Amino acid sequence: MASPLMKILTISGSLKATSFNTGLLRTLAHMAPEGVTVVEASIADIPMFNEDLEVAGLPASVATLKQQIAEADGVIISTPEYNFSYPGVLKNAIDWASRGPVRPFADKPVATISVSPGNFGGIRAQTDLRRLMHSIGAHVLPKPEIAIPQAKLKFDDDRRLTDEATRAMITTLIEKFSAFIRVHNSQASE
Amino acid sequence: MASPLMKILTISGSLKATSFNTGLLRTLAHMAPEGVTVVEASIADIPMFNEDLEVAGLPASVATLKQQIAEADGVIISTPEYNFSYPGVLKNAIDWASRGPVRPFADKPVATISVSPGNFGGIRAQTDLRRLMHSIGAHVLPKPEIAIPQAKLKFDDDRRLTDEATRAMITTLIEKFSAFIRVHNSQASE
Amino acid sequence: MASPLMKILTISGSLKATSFNTGLLRTLAHMAPEGVTVVEASIADIPMFNEDLEVAGLPASVATLKQQIAEADGVIISTPEYNFSYPGVLKNAIDWASRGPVRPFADKPVATISVSPGNFGGIRAQTDLRRLMHSIGAHVLPKPEIAIPQAKLKFDDDRRLTDEATRAMITTLIEKFSAFIRVHNSQASE
Amino acid sequence: MASPLMKILTISGSLKATSFNTGLLRTLAHMAPEGVTVVEASIADIPMFNEDLEVAGLPASVATLKQQIAEADGVIISTPEYNFSYPGVLKNAIDWASRGPVRPFADKPVATISVSPGNFGGIRAQTDLRRLMHSIGAHVLPKPEIAIPQAKLKFDDDRRLTDEATRAMITTLIEKFSAFIRVHNSQASE
Repeated sequence: MASPLMKILTISGSLKATSFNTGLLRTLAHMAPEGVTVVEASIADIPMFNEDLEVAGLPASVATLKQQIAEADGVIISTPEYNFSYPGVLKNAIDWASRGPVRPFADKPVATISVSPGNFGGIRAQTDLRRLMHSIGAHVLPKPEIAIPQAKLKFDDDRRLTDEATRAMITTLIEKFSAFIRVHNSQASE
Repeated sequence: MASPLMKILTISGSLKATSFNTGLLRTLAHMAPEGVTVVEASIADIPMFNEDLEVAGLPASVATLKQQIAEADGVIISTPEYNFSYPGVLKNAIDWASRGPVRPFADKPVATISVSPGNFGGIRAQTDLRRLMHSIGAHVLPKPEIAIPQAKLKFDDDRRLTDEATRAMITTLIEKFSAFIRVHNSQASE
Repeated sequence: MASPLMKILTISGSLKATSFNTGLLRTLAHMAPEGVTVVEASIADIPMFNEDLEVAGLPASVATLKQQIAEADGVIISTPEYNFSYPGVLKNAIDWASRGPVRPFADKPVATISVSPGNFGGIRAQTDLRRLMHSIGAHVLPKPEIAIPQAKLKFDDDRRLTDEATRAMITTLIEKFSAFIRVHNSQASE
Repeated sequence: MASPLMKILTISGSLKATSFNTGLLRTLAHMAPEGVTVVEASIADIPMFNEDLEVAGLPASVATLKQQIAEADGVIISTPEYNFSYPGVLKNAIDWASRGPVRPFADKPVATISVSPGNFGGIRAQTDLRRLMHSIGAHVLPKPEIAIPQAKLKFDDDRRLTDEATRAMITTLIEKFSAFIRVHNSQASE
């Protein structure tokens, strides 16, 4: 019997057109094995969180994001590092998604990655991101922990990940995360 | 000889019209002694950070905020707590202000406050905010550390801080922060 | 058929004879329902971590602690707050326990509590403790998050927790943690 | 007129005989220019913090450390990373030093470094260490931020730092920290 399809949602913490983080997630989407569908979320249209807006009616971009998270079997977030932590942009999207009667990140399998042009690969942003995801009850993949430093050497001009050693790490991440999701889903369906 | 005027800029981490944090900062503005001018910044119009926008030309709202910070003798930031940390909205504004050739938070005296309806007064958001401000080179007032819990009991319906014990803490904060700024300015002008 | 016994290990982050955290854990042991055995670990004899000591042979106190963690179905850690984080003493014990070929905290159900004489109940120490436990792969109970402020008002002179509202929170914690362990064990035994 | 002597105290977060962090600080001591005396503190004999011990009389090792900090013009701390943060051993020494009527870290110039055999140079330990030092009122040098990864490639068998690029970074650190101390001392003596 064929395995059921698995749906993974990706979220990039950067809005820049030539973002390494976005490029990484697109590369990852192409590397996914048969049976794993990867969908790219967009947080570009999510407004600054304001409870008055929320009361007036959830913005469509937020409703879409929450729906996408709810429908996914797992979420992979890739973050740049600004001022030694995650971008405000990414925190803002997660702040929106973590509120209200429907909280799709609760108990949701989540994997994190970080990419930076510097030497430390955004590891501090990723550490803060994991703390944030734990705080809203996500089920965070502990290992591998992939932080990609010196991005300029590892991506081509179209922001495709070309570095073989890093590609092998991403392959491992996809395998481990898929297994993590399968265990999670089998438990949830008992 | 009269003391020169001192200018303090306030930034609220909440955009909500009835925010306790905004209310606190407005109350504080009215409590400032003669010679201290308090100006309220607005981060409501600051867009999500996107390096492409920055390259295309600094948005006017960001330029204004950076100018206000640069002209102030000190900045007081009051933050709510979302998911155990500062709001993405506030981090986003600071991300913008911390970039580019002019970095007005560098060596700028900064005081932090947090207010929440819960029991812990947003202390974790404030702790993260202090770490963030240190990371961009701000000169952070170490004490007092004011985290105001159970805000509903301490503000009136117009979000004026009415609790006497808390008002006394704010008076102390203003005094300590003014002295902190004066020492800083006297050193800078040598 | 009777439920199998459940064994919970408690670790206090304070070595002081009259510690509120130790008192809390002893009170909790008395509150455990039939079928739940609570054993108190001691970290008082654990030496400062030094890899040279580790190479020379694991100190008996460390071997005992690791054995106790391995045999427990779950671990409850109660921490005071020193300088806005967990005590070095507690981090040191966890540093020892997290190393070597046998890593008993991996995938172990863990619940955290904090107690302080101040207003914030040691919540920042507890937040850092949760981050630490996640980093070594422990399976941390997300809710309830109990931080007990103003301990002097809530314990008697023998450091028994007497405050009824707080006792009710501890009862809830024991129930939730027992259920969390049962789900975990049923999955592990599949 | 000759400059007055400047005294710097170094503290290594590792007790291991062949520690890279200790080796780094010893190398640094040899690199100090004329007029700068570097003294190495030892935290090996500092007991686990226990308030009962403190009440019974400050242990001699703690009294010595506090005296050394008080007499130094500045303190340089080099930390390894255990479980993504500073060692319990180092936190314990700082916990002791931060308590009691005399608090020698208050307003003391402090510089931080981290060294690790891994790829990220212990940067997360160092980030936590900076937060800790800020929380006790130390005056932390913001830049440079030196985290030395892949230590095995950069030290010789006697744990002397031999990597030229890293040695240049340490030279810069000594210069910047000396200047930071001089500004601090000139202000304090007004």
